[in-house]
Amino acid sequence: MEREKLVLPGERVDDLQLNGLSIIQNPSGFCFGVDAVLLSDFAKAKHGAHIVDLGTGNGILPLLLSAKTKASSITAFEIQEEVAEMARRSVVYNGLEARIQIISDDLRNATTHLNKSSVDVVVTNPPYVAGGGGLVNPRDAKAIARHEIHCTLEDVIRTAAQLLKPGGGFFMVHRPSRLPDMIELMRRYKLEPKLLRFVHPKRGQAPNILLIKGVRGGGAEMRVEPPLYVYSDEGGYDPEILEIYKRAGVDPTPRDSGLEKEGL
Amino acid sequence: MEREKLVLPGERVDDLQLNGLSIIQNPSGFCFGVDAVLLSDFAKAKHGAHIVDLGTGNGILPLLLSAKTKASSITAFEIQEEVAEMARRSVVYNGLEARIQIISDDLRNATTHLNKSSVDVVVTNPPYVAGGGGLVNPRDAKAIARHEIHCTLEDVIRTAAQLLKPGGGFFMVHRPSRLPDMIELMRRYKLEPKLLRFVHPKRGQAPNILLIKGVRGGGAEMRVEPPLYVYSDEGGYDPEILEIYKRAGVDPTPRDSGLEKEGL
Repeated sequence: MEREKLVLPGERVDDLQLNGLSIIQNPSGFCFGVDAVLLSDFAKAKHGAHIVDLGTGNGILPLLLSAKTKASSITAFEIQEEVAEMARRSVVYNGLEARIQIISDDLRNATTHLNKSSVDVVVTNPPYVAGGGGLVNPRDAKAIARHEIHCTLEDVIRTAAQLLKPGGGFFMVHRPSRLPDMIELMRRYKLEPKLLRFVHPKRGQAPNILLIKGVRGGGAEMRVEPPLYVYSDEGGYDPEILEIYKRAGVDPTPRDSGLEKEGL
Repeated sequence: MEREKLVLPGERVDDLQLNGLSIIQNPSGFCFGVDAVLLSDFAKAKHGAHIVDLGTGNGILPLLLSAKTKASSITAFEIQEEVAEMARRSVVYNGLEARIQIISDDLRNATTHLNKSSVDVVVTNPPYVAGGGGLVNPRDAKAIARHEIHCTLEDVIRTAAQLLKPGGGFFMVHRPSRLPDMIELMRRYKLEPKLLRFVHPKRGQAPNILLIKGVRGGGAEMRVEPPLYVYSDEGGYDPEILEIYKRAGVDPTPRDSGLEKEGL
């Protein structure tokens, strides 16, 4: 099949500039942002690892992790059928069917597809806003990516803990305001918080993104890394962010600020 | 009584340069450090408030808070009799007997001295290191200030929750590595984590101190403040730290780096 036939009307193909990878996105739906790129850089996986992505959206994390890691397989769950279908077409577009599997199902059903305690690494960029809320349209793809309509933070953390092997790593990007929820739930499900990094828009500003690593059954003692700044004081991306984009293989300039999920 | 008679051999008097306040310290024991000054700046108390300090050491926090706030009374617990006695002499030295009471007792007995749910603000600079450890001398005043020999983090948080009125504020300085313990325990005892600030030795370095505020019965949603740096890139204290010392009324220069508790 010709690659172009994989792209539907209204969609666009973004060149990830990494191993020739591209991603299909729908600008009227949810497009990946800086948080996905930061998470792909924060997450670590060994050669031959099995990675699971909980709530993959258009499949950006599996694509980035397929290039960055030597993981043998990446299984990604996405509840929205049409979004999962788009992610699947991106996988085919890149010829990655052997390494990436997109499952269109509720992530709470993950253990009906995969064995418990069988996964090396779980990554997730879940909805940030607690509760569905009365004003949210539950059919809106952007709302589903942002609000806890189909899954709560507890669903994500419980599922990750079920899937991970003892010692397996959990890597999540989320909002700093939810840190107490994260830590309380990670402790409850024995995903010990081990590493934390805050991402600030600029120097002197409060963080609006955080990256957290948990280890299933890990011992108590967490490391907090130095702050990461998205923009430099002079304007434009901070050198460390450019370095992360470069490592991730993503060109930060052409698309947008990369911050649309957060509406920054 | 002459003021000088309040100072015992081996002790020294440090001028806090604030409302004429001074503190008696024993250089061979535990002297206050930057963390106490940062905590006194981070803590907020309204006019007429009743403040409790859990584990006051030489009484630095009550002295600083007596000058900074319009609290009507400050009750401070210290388990080491001779350290509590030194703190009491500092209170007398400064003529603050009407506002500051030093109780030499285990902080776990606090509710035998004060009514439950009666306190507006609890501040604490507790031992940072989990467990007493086999190598620690349990009679060593410095070890008692640093290691959880006489009280655990859970003791401190449970006691604070018992003492505070609903809506009352809990302000603690601690180590970032213990953040998961803090948050889990604060949630358990209904001291909702509301505000967090990390203190870094320098820009680009990981934080080694954190300041956390909890509110008894508060709603879930935490704010993380911009990072605070102790030293500037050019050497010397960062301007914000100098501002905090100035607000606290403490001269940062003559004594030491102010970081001796942490051995930094």
